[in-house]
Amino acid sequence: MRLPVDTDRLRADIEANAAFGAIDADDPERRGRTNRTGTEPNRRARDRLVDRMTDVGLDVTVDAVGNVAGAWIPDAADPDAAPVASGSHLDSVPEGGMFDGPLGVYAALEAVRAMQDAAVEPDRPVLVVSFTEEEGATYGDGLVGSTAATGGATVEETLAFANDDGETLEEALSRIGYRGDGLLDPARWDGFYELHVEQDTTLESAGVDAGIVTTITGITHCEATIVGEANHAGATAMGDRTDALAAASEFVLDVERAATDVVESSSPSAVGTVGSLSVSPNATNVVPGRVDAGVDVRDVTVESIETIVDAARDSLTRLARERGVETTFDRPFDVSPTPMSDRLRAAAHDAATDADHTALDLHSGAAHDAMRVAGVTDAALLFAPSRDGISHNPREWTDWDDCAAATAVLAGAIATVAGGV
Amino acid sequence: MRLPVDTDRLRADIEANAAFGAIDADDPERRGRTNRTGTEPNRRARDRLVDRMTDVGLDVTVDAVGNVAGAWIPDAADPDAAPVASGSHLDSVPEGGMFDGPLGVYAALEAVRAMQDAAVEPDRPVLVVSFTEEEGATYGDGLVGSTAATGGATVEETLAFANDDGETLEEALSRIGYRGDGLLDPARWDGFYELHVEQDTTLESAGVDAGIVTTITGITHCEATIVGEANHAGATAMGDRTDALAAASEFVLDVERAATDVVESSSPSAVGTVGSLSVSPNATNVVPGRVDAGVDVRDVTVESIETIVDAARDSLTRLARERGVETTFDRPFDVSPTPMSDRLRAAAHDAATDADHTALDLHSGAAHDAMRVAGVTDAALLFAPSRDGISHNPREWTDWDDCAAATAVLAGAIATVAGGV
Repeated sequence: MRLPVDTDRLRADIEANAAFGAIDADDPERRGRTNRTGTEPNRRARDRLVDRMTDVGLDVTVDAVGNVAGAWIPDAADPDAAPVASGSHLDSVPEGGMFDGPLGVYAALEAVRAMQDAAVEPDRPVLVVSFTEEEGATYGDGLVGSTAATGGATVEETLAFANDDGETLEEALSRIGYRGDGLLDPARWDGFYELHVEQDTTLESAGVDAGIVTTITGITHCEATIVGEANHAGATAMGDRTDALAAASEFVLDVERAATDVVESSSPSAVGTVGSLSVSPNATNVVPGRVDAGVDVRDVTVESIETIVDAARDSLTRLARERGVETTFDRPFDVSPTPMSDRLRAAAHDAATDADHTALDLHSGAAHDAMRVAGVTDAALLFAPSRDGISHNPREWTDWDDCAAATAVLAGAIATVAGGV
Repeated sequence: MRLPVDTDRLRADIEANAAFGAIDADDPERRGRTNRTGTEPNRRARDRLVDRMTDVGLDVTVDAVGNVAGAWIPDAADPDAAPVASGSHLDSVPEGGMFDGPLGVYAALEAVRAMQDAAVEPDRPVLVVSFTEEEGATYGDGLVGSTAATGGATVEETLAFANDDGETLEEALSRIGYRGDGLLDPARWDGFYELHVEQDTTLESAGVDAGIVTTITGITHCEATIVGEANHAGATAMGDRTDALAAASEFVLDVERAATDVVESSSPSAVGTVGSLSVSPNATNVVPGRVDAGVDVRDVTVESIETIVDAARDSLTRLARERGVETTFDRPFDVSPTPMSDRLRAAAHDAATDADHTALDLHSGAAHDAMRVAGVTDAALLFAPSRDGISHNPREWTDWDDCAAATAVLAGAIATVAGGV
């Protein structure tokens, strides 16, 4: 099915949304925004979405954790049938981009409008969804609204998250008028599509219009501590040192090498990163006594994640033996790889073909709300190309034609899955 | 010459001095002190020194930057002869030890008392000196009083140093009553001895009573920046990264290896340390975009310092080529190695032999006031053993017998050089 997605209408939505919390709007290189949950820009972004949903006849609800849904129940549809849902989020990281989140929300709305324009009436209701606090920049650790809706946290736990000023999510949502009732129930949905910007260069490099995600990678976060002996950098001979930073430097390179080995031998999607490193006492003239390192490991299979984590642990064991440091290793965060629905992916491939757009299977190295929804029903994640792969940055950019092409694939897939085509 | 150094008297001085700014005095493992220039503990430490100097007939002067000197002019001495000076400092780092500095000041005073007790009357006056702000923990970058006295900074520049609260050294010295007149003139001294704790384990390992420093190492501080590209740790493939921390880790290990190579091939005293490392944005799930590293390089010859600095610079050049990072390299601080006086060292060796104490030639990896004085007259630096090499720490310790032995060497050397023995 080929649906008449309106590029200008979609662009107008995303640009209007980007005005809420816009930073340096006059600088074409800095078109980004800061849209934190519970702020005035966040309220205005939500209000505008509700208005646009209402404009086209959607029945809008706000749940207890601020998730917004607009239900389109075509005259031909069974109002009690399991709906097909689609959406993403409106919040951003501080000084983030204008596409990360809003593209998926407004693309879902545009899909409904395109079906309406084409007089396509699915058998199932279609739900346009905006989840609360996907980024975790202000409340919780991210995927907050979708985690609550899929049973990963209770409403009470979720509303108790506090921002840096001590205000709870409940207080913030009440203040901006988005503390609603009930809870979205994705387990009741027939399926869920999320369109998002890729945040990497796979699509751009391949010159392809849309990505269809096979698997969202598993994510492990590890915390390593390496303790040596702080000492005078001038008075301590090279042979008398237990330098925590020199040991940590080997650790960083061991993690990088382990991930690269997995990439070259078995799984090109594997990544291993030491993203944070804190040195104590961190003075030029003192041999470092302690280093705390944060490690991020991701891949599409548990096996390759474990291979990299094991290598990190082995590195610490070796450093304790060879350099005399004391080490600890914790793994505070661990999410398994999440495969996307074959049924929904097939519908997306068909929609791409129907719309004369090219599509590519790829994995997602980043977590998205679709990861949580996949725990309770069929879910799929589509990508639009990101220029230079840049995201979480005002320079984040996706060409409007690329936004429209990916939206056309999304619209066709929703229409197919919702049936009656 | 063997002089009757009084261990109990020396110990009483050092213990009494340690009470000014004492931390956790009840804990035998934490006998340290915080004695910052210009504070009440600093005023009391200075007052006590002046009292003890006056007790034994020294003529006390305080100069414009707060350096305190007590002149002993024996009846037999020519009051206009160039004096032999000896001393160190009373200030400490925050939570420092009780020996670092005060041992050298009170050992010089004990040397005078021992000569008086033995009725030794040198031909030259003997000066007991306490320099202002050796540590640089509160004002300036260290060696403050000795730098001013030897012409490395003007009185105006020195008094303009401000602490973290914005109070200048001039204001602080005036407040505690130690803003005097004139300026100590080490260029007029016949020679200067400083006794200090070793802050390393050479003497302890060798089981030797005293160290006689051959050379104070040169010190270079370098600042390296390594800029890569911050990016999403999940969405950025291993092959698409320019990871500033992975590059910096190679740099840390290259510096360590370069110093170790110099130690093994030519100069055992060489040290090279990356003591500080700051990562940006320093989040577990972001590929590091920038690292700032601080490097400390020291040795007794310029050649080996340059070999290590060249290796650090070459490492950055290689990393720019191999990893695509952008790098900068600055060298904001550079002091050449400072040889100690052969004449004064020979007198110290003779004094050790006379007193039946063992002595060892060694270098100093740390800077001391003697380094500045050596720029204008003969200077020597003696060491007492440091337990486990620990310093700048409440656990800093030197046994009282070791303090007394090193003081006996100091006293004999001063008596010899001051003549009339």
